[in-house]
Amino acid sequence: MSNRVYIYDTTLRDGAQTQGVDFSAADKAKIARELDSLGIDYIEGGWPGANPTDDAFFAAPPKFSQSKLCAFGMTRRAGRSADNDPGLAALTQHPVGAVTMVGKSWDFQVTVALGIELDENLRMIGESIAQLGKKVPEVLYDAEHFFDGYKANPAYALQALKAAYDNGARWMVLCDTNGGSLPHDIERIVGEVIKAGIPGSHLGIHCHNDTEAAVANSLAAVKAGVRQVQGTINGLGERCGNANLVSIIPNLMLKMGFETGVSLDNLKNLVRVSRALDEVLDRKPNRSQPYVGSSAFAHKGGLHVSAVAKDPSCYEHVDPARVGNVRQIVVSDQAGRSNIVARMADLGIDIASVKKDALINVVEQMQVDFDPREVADLVDLIKRLEHEGYAYDTAAASFELLVRRALGQVPDYFRLERYRVIDERRRNAVGHWVTLSEATVKVEVGGREYIQVGEGDGPVHAFDTALRQVLTGPFPQLEALELADYRVRIVESTAGTAARTRVTIESTDGQGHRWTTVGVHSNVLEASLEALQDSIAYMLYRFADRD
Amino acid sequence: MSNRVYIYDTTLRDGAQTQGVDFSAADKAKIARELDSLGIDYIEGGWPGANPTDDAFFAAPPKFSQSKLCAFGMTRRAGRSADNDPGLAALTQHPVGAVTMVGKSWDFQVTVALGIELDENLRMIGESIAQLGKKVPEVLYDAEHFFDGYKANPAYALQALKAAYDNGARWMVLCDTNGGSLPHDIERIVGEVIKAGIPGSHLGIHCHNDTEAAVANSLAAVKAGVRQVQGTINGLGERCGNANLVSIIPNLMLKMGFETGVSLDNLKNLVRVSRALDEVLDRKPNRSQPYVGSSAFAHKGGLHVSAVAKDPSCYEHVDPARVGNVRQIVVSDQAGRSNIVARMADLGIDIASVKKDALINVVEQMQVDFDPREVADLVDLIKRLEHEGYAYDTAAASFELLVRRALGQVPDYFRLERYRVIDERRRNAVGHWVTLSEATVKVEVGGREYIQVGEGDGPVHAFDTALRQVLTGPFPQLEALELADYRVRIVESTAGTAARTRVTIESTDGQGHRWTTVGVHSNVLEASLEALQDSIAYMLYRFADRD
Repeated sequence: MSNRVYIYDTTLRDGAQTQGVDFSAADKAKIARELDSLGIDYIEGGWPGANPTDDAFFAAPPKFSQSKLCAFGMTRRAGRSADNDPGLAALTQHPVGAVTMVGKSWDFQVTVALGIELDENLRMIGESIAQLGKKVPEVLYDAEHFFDGYKANPAYALQALKAAYDNGARWMVLCDTNGGSLPHDIERIVGEVIKAGIPGSHLGIHCHNDTEAAVANSLAAVKAGVRQVQGTINGLGERCGNANLVSIIPNLMLKMGFETGVSLDNLKNLVRVSRALDEVLDRKPNRSQPYVGSSAFAHKGGLHVSAVAKDPSCYEHVDPARVGNVRQIVVSDQAGRSNIVARMADLGIDIASVKKDALINVVEQMQVDFDPREVADLVDLIKRLEHEGYAYDTAAASFELLVRRALGQVPDYFRLERYRVIDERRRNAVGHWVTLSEATVKVEVGGREYIQVGEGDGPVHAFDTALRQVLTGPFPQLEALELADYRVRIVESTAGTAARTRVTIESTDGQGHRWTTVGVHSNVLEASLEALQDSIAYMLYRFADRD
Repeated sequence: MSNRVYIYDTTLRDGAQTQGVDFSAADKAKIARELDSLGIDYIEGGWPGANPTDDAFFAAPPKFSQSKLCAFGMTRRAGRSADNDPGLAALTQHPVGAVTMVGKSWDFQVTVALGIELDENLRMIGESIAQLGKKVPEVLYDAEHFFDGYKANPAYALQALKAAYDNGARWMVLCDTNGGSLPHDIERIVGEVIKAGIPGSHLGIHCHNDTEAAVANSLAAVKAGVRQVQGTINGLGERCGNANLVSIIPNLMLKMGFETGVSLDNLKNLVRVSRALDEVLDRKPNRSQPYVGSSAFAHKGGLHVSAVAKDPSCYEHVDPARVGNVRQIVVSDQAGRSNIVARMADLGIDIASVKKDALINVVEQMQVDFDPREVADLVDLIKRLEHEGYAYDTAAASFELLVRRALGQVPDYFRLERYRVIDERRRNAVGHWVTLSEATVKVEVGGREYIQVGEGDGPVHAFDTALRQVLTGPFPQLEALELADYRVRIVESTAGTAARTRVTIESTDGQGHRWTTVGVHSNVLEASLEALQDSIAYMLYRFADRD
């Protein structure tokens, strides 16, 4: 039996069922690119024909280097022929690498939820798969409620699988749809299915986490012989989530000796892919998440830490570097420090070369709650700013600007002297609502002062318009700057002080570069303008022709 | 073999190792009382003699009706006699029901971390347990690193267990200290330990979640014969957490046919106990937590919801009432008509009673991209609005307002006629930066027009100040309204149309009510003002004295 396990990601389809999750087509493309870079075998993009977002995604999907794009859909309707079913037709409207057909295998569901004859359900499965097999390279059968169905009526559940297998489905995927199973159930039933004649090399597993055992259930199925595992990044999914691929992949590869499409080298992207999803969802990463959480390899105090120093295998189940994570020693402030120093070293910067005057100068241009002269050094400054709400983990561009400014490496491309923004809503002469925003900015560029006014859709946009009208003269490359994302959230600083607002802006230059900047202020507009000005400065510093 | 499994909670000791967790003695007492009310067999309170908090807790522990209070400590030091060891003496200074002794069973740890002879370690275990057995009713032995130790040197790991067993330890607890094991390892090794002569009725299991399998690992050990399970509430614990008792207990009782000290009646307190810990920790409950999360029995998606209505066992692995949870029907873009109708039914509203005119009237007051006359009915309207970016599955208050407005149930408390907001930053006479926001609003309330100006920290705050200066006259209860959270993100509508901004506001009234409203617009300020006005209207409608 081969030890190659195929990974099938359904973050974009089953994960999108999560309460509070609402992917745009652009979000889906962004996540899909990350999955492809990891080496996921199958990426289920959604359900073509079910909603406009999925249609938009399938009409212009990202190009994959390794993954197969899958469309998800349902077997044909009862009493209709498969080649005349609009649902099936929608699935092959755009080119895909595979189609996954969901169908029933629990007799109770067939008769109660669908209200049809048991035989008609088997025909629906077989005919739909045969029909799609003519149009797409690969067809999968998702056996919904398989385990509950098997417990109720094993013969019928197996008939449903065979209807798919006999009609050419490449994979029969056993779904624990309600998520109520435990590993020993899964292992036993998979063994019986294989004994009944469906080879493990054609079986997949799809678990939900309602008993907090989705990862273990998936592994139990692999031990019993299945060779495809379905799940989502970070265990996203409705109710308690789907099986978490971020735990399953390293468990299979590092613990159980299986191979997947993920190379050992790509496995080091695991932390990055996990965080990328959190960012799209605007969620705080779960720091205790297995393998990838920031606390997953954290060691606290004393004896323990000296034992880790003697030999990490005393207290670490795997080397954190294998999944792109880092060890964290939580001894007072030391942990933060070494982290920051390591990040500066990544930029080729030695902390010792930062001069105190330059540091004070940088801080004076920010609006912060502490006295710049109290700041001991650059690491201390970064820790203070993070305490104020700056999130440099995500805003790498602002981090780099801050560090390079302290080293005097970033010119003052421009300096904002003053601004005024007016937003207004009123009725015009014919009684229609008129909303407008107008910004006036006074900016110094290269020793000259400019004053400019701009209109926009909201205060940030109006400010951006006015500022860029000034700056695209001296820096024409800024024409290409685009705001790709804009996020705001409230961050509390220590108890007793006022709430602050953190604004994160993601920008692109139309050349494939993307960077993220951050601003923090009690005033949402000020925080936005800080992040916006950093975005402009970063583009000028990193991507401009600096002659 | 008995089917009674003993539950041992270590939230107050191992859980207290979590990064950022710092229990006071009063916190510990509060949590311990909850655990006792659930029917937990053993409550480990901490480590007497190790720190002042634990000493204070053991000096005056809460009275338990069912649980045994346990103290945790370490075997005697090397080269010292057990009856002359200050660490052991501290453990029996206050009366306890049991003492748990941690000791080494991995040869590598003994020689590397402790740096002592293998035989001396065995004597330390045996003598410490014998010594404590004279002073307390029950002694447990925690075999640290047992599974790693067993893999490295099974004979020595078993000798360590036997040293404890032969000296009278009631339970030998097998610890997966680094959390790297998987269920099949655990099941195999437990089987071998029992075969080697330690009965399962004297074995316990203590798992960590580093492979996301702590729950399944614990259950695998029980299947293999152990009869005590250690863990924490909500899986609290360092790194990735300890085994989560909140999932283990219902899995054992409702799925595997075991009995615990928790009665079926007390099991209904599970949600309450889980939330009580979150409250002590000031953490937001994890809504996707198995069994107890608010989404654990949430249903999204059309077909699905109509099937749940027909028979809940179609889509629910257990009845939520058994663990004190409730079913939830969620509205979302994914959902078909039936969800939305079900949610309206929850509000006591029949969709048929909505008049077309009222619907058009409601839509005309929103700033949307479609013609109100195209809207077929209320469900269609909700689906269109969700497509525009309104996220009603989080913003339940805006959902309710929309529905009730369409039914004419919500008075027009106030009507915004126009506004103007000015934000400015400039230097003052002495050269310091001055930032200010000023809003002017014109509002009609009860047939009278008011014009008012307000200052604030940013445009939304200034607007809020001005509007509430008008409204707190007629509606004094609005003084108590507070913004608890404010989030902004960009939502793409279908390709080709402009990006829109979604603002979500969470509000409180200082009386324990919380509600969430949403606004969507291409202009971030307009979206904010929409969410803010909904928040005010909702407070007036739901919580005000409407006489």
